[in-house]
Amino acid sequence: MKIETLTNTSIYETHSPSLPHRTWSDWLIGNPMRTADAPHQTISKKIGLAVFASDALSSSAYATQEIMMILAVAASGGLHYVFPISLAIVTLMVIVTISYEQTIHTYPGGGGSYIVARDNLGELPAQTAGAALLTDYILTVAVSISSGVAQITSAFPSLYSYRVLIAVSLVFFVMLMNLRGVKESGKLFAIPTYFFVVAMLVTVSIGFIRFMIGSLGSVVNPPAFSLVGAAVAITPFLLLHAFSTGTSALTGIEAISNGITAFHEPRSKNAGITLIWMTSILAVLFLSISFLAGKIGAIPSESETVISQLARTVYSGTGLLYLALISGTAVILIMAANTAFADFPRLGALQAGDGFLPRQLTFRGSRLVYSWGIVALAMLASLLIIIFQASVTRLIPLYAIGVFLSFTLSQTGMARRWWKSGRLKAEQEIQEHGSIVKYDQRWKFKMIVNGFGAVCTFVVMIVFGVTKFKDGAWLIIIIIPLLVVFFMGIHFHYESLAKNLSLEYYTSQPVAIRHRVILLLAGVHRGSLVALNYAESLSNDVTAVHVSIDPQESEKVRKKWETYGNGVRLVILDSPYRQLVEPVIEYLEKLMANRQPNELFTIVVPQFIPRHWWGNLLHRQTALLLRFALLFKPGLVIVEVPYQV
Amino acid sequence: MKIETLTNTSIYETHSPSLPHRTWSDWLIGNPMRTADAPHQTISKKIGLAVFASDALSSSAYATQEIMMILAVAASGGLHYVFPISLAIVTLMVIVTISYEQTIHTYPGGGGSYIVARDNLGELPAQTAGAALLTDYILTVAVSISSGVAQITSAFPSLYSYRVLIAVSLVFFVMLMNLRGVKESGKLFAIPTYFFVVAMLVTVSIGFIRFMIGSLGSVVNPPAFSLVGAAVAITPFLLLHAFSTGTSALTGIEAISNGITAFHEPRSKNAGITLIWMTSILAVLFLSISFLAGKIGAIPSESETVISQLARTVYSGTGLLYLALISGTAVILIMAANTAFADFPRLGALQAGDGFLPRQLTFRGSRLVYSWGIVALAMLASLLIIIFQASVTRLIPLYAIGVFLSFTLSQTGMARRWWKSGRLKAEQEIQEHGSIVKYDQRWKFKMIVNGFGAVCTFVVMIVFGVTKFKDGAWLIIIIIPLLVVFFMGIHFHYESLAKNLSLEYYTSQPVAIRHRVILLLAGVHRGSLVALNYAESLSNDVTAVHVSIDPQESEKVRKKWETYGNGVRLVILDSPYRQLVEPVIEYLEKLMANRQPNELFTIVVPQFIPRHWWGNLLHRQTALLLRFALLFKPGLVIVEVPYQV
Repeated sequence: MKIETLTNTSIYETHSPSLPHRTWSDWLIGNPMRTADAPHQTISKKIGLAVFASDALSSSAYATQEIMMILAVAASGGLHYVFPISLAIVTLMVIVTISYEQTIHTYPGGGGSYIVARDNLGELPAQTAGAALLTDYILTVAVSISSGVAQITSAFPSLYSYRVLIAVSLVFFVMLMNLRGVKESGKLFAIPTYFFVVAMLVTVSIGFIRFMIGSLGSVVNPPAFSLVGAAVAITPFLLLHAFSTGTSALTGIEAISNGITAFHEPRSKNAGITLIWMTSILAVLFLSISFLAGKIGAIPSESETVISQLARTVYSGTGLLYLALISGTAVILIMAANTAFADFPRLGALQAGDGFLPRQLTFRGSRLVYSWGIVALAMLASLLIIIFQASVTRLIPLYAIGVFLSFTLSQTGMARRWWKSGRLKAEQEIQEHGSIVKYDQRWKFKMIVNGFGAVCTFVVMIVFGVTKFKDGAWLIIIIIPLLVVFFMGIHFHYESLAKNLSLEYYTSQPVAIRHRVILLLAGVHRGSLVALNYAESLSNDVTAVHVSIDPQESEKVRKKWETYGNGVRLVILDSPYRQLVEPVIEYLEKLMANRQPNELFTIVVPQFIPRHWWGNLLHRQTALLLRFALLFKPGLVIVEVPYQV
Repeated sequence: MKIETLTNTSIYETHSPSLPHRTWSDWLIGNPMRTADAPHQTISKKIGLAVFASDALSSSAYATQEIMMILAVAASGGLHYVFPISLAIVTLMVIVTISYEQTIHTYPGGGGSYIVARDNLGELPAQTAGAALLTDYILTVAVSISSGVAQITSAFPSLYSYRVLIAVSLVFFVMLMNLRGVKESGKLFAIPTYFFVVAMLVTVSIGFIRFMIGSLGSVVNPPAFSLVGAAVAITPFLLLHAFSTGTSALTGIEAISNGITAFHEPRSKNAGITLIWMTSILAVLFLSISFLAGKIGAIPSESETVISQLARTVYSGTGLLYLALISGTAVILIMAANTAFADFPRLGALQAGDGFLPRQLTFRGSRLVYSWGIVALAMLASLLIIIFQASVTRLIPLYAIGVFLSFTLSQTGMARRWWKSGRLKAEQEIQEHGSIVKYDQRWKFKMIVNGFGAVCTFVVMIVFGVTKFKDGAWLIIIIIPLLVVFFMGIHFHYESLAKNLSLEYYTSQPVAIRHRVILLLAGVHRGSLVALNYAESLSNDVTAVHVSIDPQESEKVRKKWETYGNGVRLVILDSPYRQLVEPVIEYLEKLMANRQPNELFTIVVPQFIPRHWWGNLLHRQTALLLRFALLFKPGLVIVEVPYQV
């Protein structure tokens, strides 16, 4: 045996100095990159905060407003509950952050909910977490871009009627950027994130100062609030509804735990510190916005965001500082969508690698990114934006339930892990010392922390599902189990395929020695004679078959075959119903019923190839139809002899 | 040589008693029919009138209204010109009828404009006539169905907002009926046509009686007429504009000349008499409607048709007789669309047979009808209806210009024919007698009749094009030449193909004796070993080729091949850019550059066939992509070895 390895690099270097042929898509997304060129550098805490925090921090741009949207329908004084509810949400945020801190130290290789659930809870919870996260990433893109567009249309109201178009264009822009493979580690990301944080901190600081010296006042010309139906009473349900709406502020907190490997060593420590910083900033911004929005009497509205109302009240107008904050907010929201574009394809590839999603998702495109996942995310998010007309308020009820489901699964998985590690330690102690002597109790504390996180996020998820059920949460409650079933179906397909193709019990068969060749003839011309030539080179046992639709045509074929057929026998199949494929199939089935064990059936199909692709439209694609029908018949081999004109 | 003919009938009778497998489409359009079952019966004049007149007669339902639409914008008294203009149109109708009478006697085998132009004027005029007629048939469907729906919505105004949906549904209903192959000769057609004629004659007769005894009165609650812009003066241009709009009454007159063969013998005579009857009825109905519409002060409107206004004035309400007329009108309009569904595919097949349209149009489906043409017509007409929102007034400017172009070409062709026959006779006289003695002058008269028809229809066409240019006629003026260029391009394709495939100068080549086989490997499994088995049966010169994207995967392939590869050499192509198809192509190009004259390259592609079609979505279709790329390389044969799971 001779095994030669041609490194194709040299071929490329001969034909084109450095790269394969450039195509239009290269122009759009950049020149192809080598597999070996995958980046491996790590980032600092400062850059890490910028890279991973955009999703979480950007939720401060809409969380307050969405709480107000719910409370505004209350009889009166409903909006007084905005700040207390925000405080409750920040408490939850702290609990989740502490939980994730522990995950980061336990999974230094990256501890997304999918991995934690897969390691500690098994296949079904892992796929549930996967389904929850994938739907959530789609919603992150839809909500963030819609909210970003809402900031833009607040500053430029004339653009409001183009919001869906602008939003979809932005999704495609972010998609293209990701197909190019924007490096997450780029310092480029640091600028807008810090710009947003600084702009927002400056705004709320000035707001607080003006509030304390009493010069803040109220919003001038607030947008109209149209109350549909009668004002409702303030009930616990309403408050829980507002609370669960506000939990959208927690989305994005898990981002750092997915990307631990990107940090400098000691990476767990660095990632953990960054997480705490991120939550602190988010809590400050969110609470400040909620507090000030109440004081200035902001009105929740689709036409002007609360951020915009706050900014023009604090700055007494829509000057440069106002525009700086609005544009900073819009940019960070678009960057939040970008985070989902990094996470969705990565998770998709992970699930596909485990065999729960189509294998194509593991394929890295010319720019080393998971192209299929990126394109799928853009399509689905655009669809949501179009259906919900880029309305954040209409999208929010779908959002966050997936986040909390994945939080719950992740924390439950961690708690289970501590419990198992505790039992293991106890067993070791007993094995070593006969009884538990030096019992390390830390696992208990850790288990309680993660367990408490799991219970809290689980309760929030239930509250969310109940209060927002009819607003749209029902859709997600239906979709997630369906997705899990779908993932399981895919897994079953791949498993059974692998079993069928396995060589484990394979015994090689003797080479079949007798070829029986069927040559399909549409007419007798140069193309069919090339095919005849090939058929005769395969075997002496060649039968030409012609389907007769028009008796006059068939007579012509018969006559011509007498001249050019080289003595090969011709079978003419009558087709009274003018079908082409069916008579061939029936004839072959009859022949194959009498097949000898060492006989191999080969169907030779002359395939006409027009000079231009549109030439195909001028010919009945008989060869293609036959190929498709014959492929499903076991025991046949199809030979296409092309003739180019 | 042995030529056996299997009549597939017997196979069918063994497998399924009378018919091939029933599919869902059989359920929709009926069981397949044998080629031999094509109907050959002929019809009487009475049935013939019903079958061929629906298109022509139905135009009386909208022609008056469309004339009024143009005149209604005039300052005042514009509507007084409706009747004189109608008279002028009827005169034109008589001229065209006399012209066609002559055609019918000259072409007893069917004398559509395409055939007459092809026989007497040549390729380019024939294709022009074809283009004009095809566009016109599409418009016939769109206009007739839209007008039919307008009658329905006049009676049931609440349906007005669903008019596009209703119209498109009707187009699809007529399409399905035609795919089933409704027999044109059915007596079924006689009932609605005569019902319409009788209902309309009764209505106008009662109208005349009530007008004469002075009890007719005016329309009660006429629809509002919204005049856009200022009222215009009555100019010759306006009158010509109204005239050309009204010429839509002439559409459908040529139908009988297309279908002469359907009549009992003597068919030309019978068809001719039927034509005269048809024109007479049309003229009476059209003039009566135009006269009475003026007397009752009908208002042209999109929301209520003039026919509906006339009927409820004559019958003093919307009772049973009103509904009878309206439903009769709606049904005949839908039948007019049906006529186009008979003519469009027939002309398409004729042009395709001559090689000016895709050959698929000559293919008769399971029900012996030209399925491709029927489906194409339905799609194009639906598109027009959707674009023009089922508005007859907006569709009319596109209509009729094609009709008059085909009239002109047909009459010119006839005139040319008479002239040639006259010259021929004169030459014969001179040959026989040395000079013209007994000179038969009848050809001169006939030539003048057709020539006059040609001039009249040409003038109308020009008037039409000028007056309606900016309303939409410009579109048709652009489209028809483009279509002709397109037809010529198709013709060129078929001609050059036939030349290339011709066996005229063919000398048979010696059978290639050396097979060089390339086996493409994605992995080593049962499927690829089946393909290896086949490859080895073709030749001893087999090379397995694997594209390496992931070095670890390739290493596995190499190891497995050592065990299972049966000593066949393996080439591993590095693909640093993760491409699958391109490295294979480059490798093959390199090999083929050194090809020996008697060497034949065969590429063996293992093709995985999933159990269900959706299984394909879970696999990268590498085999398909390769097949597609390789087909365009001359000198390669592609062998697909399927492995079913």
